[in-house]
Amino acid sequence: MPRMKIETKIKELGFTLPDVPKPVASYIPAVKTGNLVFTAGMLPMVKGKLAYNGKVGADVSLEDGVKAAEISLLNGLAAIKGVAGDLDKIVKVVKLSGYVNSASCFTDQPKVLNGASELLLKIFGDAGKHARIAIGVNELPLNACVELDIIVEVKE
Amino acid sequence: MPRMKIETKIKELGFTLPDVPKPVASYIPAVKTGNLVFTAGMLPMVKGKLAYNGKVGADVSLEDGVKAAEISLLNGLAAIKGVAGDLDKIVKVVKLSGYVNSASCFTDQPKVLNGASELLLKIFGDAGKHARIAIGVNELPLNACVELDIIVEVKE
Amino acid sequence: MPRMKIETKIKELGFTLPDVPKPVASYIPAVKTGNLVFTAGMLPMVKGKLAYNGKVGADVSLEDGVKAAEISLLNGLAAIKGVAGDLDKIVKVVKLSGYVNSASCFTDQPKVLNGASELLLKIFGDAGKHARIAIGVNELPLNACVELDIIVEVKE
Repeated sequence: MPRMKIETKIKELGFTLPDVPKPVASYIPAVKTGNLVFTAGMLPMVKGKLAYNGKVGADVSLEDGVKAAEISLLNGLAAIKGVAGDLDKIVKVVKLSGYVNSASCFTDQPKVLNGASELLLKIFGDAGKHARIAIGVNELPLNACVELDIIVEVKE
Repeated sequence: MPRMKIETKIKELGFTLPDVPKPVASYIPAVKTGNLVFTAGMLPMVKGKLAYNGKVGADVSLEDGVKAAEISLLNGLAAIKGVAGDLDKIVKVVKLSGYVNSASCFTDQPKVLNGASELLLKIFGDAGKHARIAIGVNELPLNACVELDIIVEVKE
Repeated sequence: MPRMKIETKIKELGFTLPDVPKPVASYIPAVKTGNLVFTAGMLPMVKGKLAYNGKVGADVSLEDGVKAAEISLLNGLAAIKGVAGDLDKIVKVVKLSGYVNSASCFTDQPKVLNGASELLLKIFGDAGKHARIAIGVNELPLNACVELDIIVEVKE
């Protein structure tokens, strides 16, 4: 039985792959080099507006931080589709780096980023198993609550 | 018509490629693996001294932050030249990661990093189009106002 | 004379390679793609518990920050061994990215990360010379004092 198409899987999970995110400055959403695709930093943008902003642990709840990580991930997948042509070209997810706009004493960055990590596992199965780093920071562009970038391996 | 040499282009734009930056600790300025070159973190150093330090949005203006990003980028290109031998070996710029020492409530990290991104476009044209992440942080080495690293693809 | 086995060298230096670190959330410790291995973010965990937590420059001394960087590095090497099979497969260390949980005005992130960088040089010699970025941040997962990730090149 052939694997379900990745975009179909995303829809079945109740999510929608957005249009390729428009960079907020002078760069492009993703670049392919050899078999790797590196994305730009992805914010929780929905139709060009930040869905969640402020610091997690103060302005933004952990639950909303998780949703923001999911949205950012979907933007990242859209960026990858933009250069790879098709998400079914992804052989494996290599690395997710996530930055959480963190209130003082907020140390649950891993739980926030699980929004993105668990969605990768649901969408890609074993191929979605990735290395990850979660970091807390004091400020992010446009006061976004989370930002992430992704490296994936694609087939030619 | 052959492409102008990259170092000539840098001069024509009014900038000077510095000497390879001296690391501030136990590492080297750049490493080549396969067709990729990864640089170390680059600070806005001019002749071994920080040109701009402190937090953007408080001690350092946005305009000076932009200049600091340009200087850091030139240091990064010097580091790449050190391992690639010649900047004309660069096939494309893959990824720029930029960290801005950010005053509380400063959220214009993308504008700061545009100093580096726009210079890449001016120097390399289409080959300079890169993925980028901009992050705000509360402290940087030596109290630098910006730090960045670069990944580029080079030919053998 | 054949090179001493890397794990023997680690022991001779007075360190112990730990078990593969257990991720604190939904990801895996390291991923191999082509000839590169990317690790997840590594914390200064010893047998599942953080050895040092809090902010360097306030709760944690510079000396203890250095030790925390050493521990995090050893966890990273264990993660690489987990996917590469053997640390002797490492051709060179490419990049070390280090994040230091930093008290206000603490700007000696490079000295903290030297704990990891100098250990890499001792273990791997010339093959341990790496590019590095050191960043200060206001919060880290579980209130760890340092977090780092590593990219290495391995042979097939």
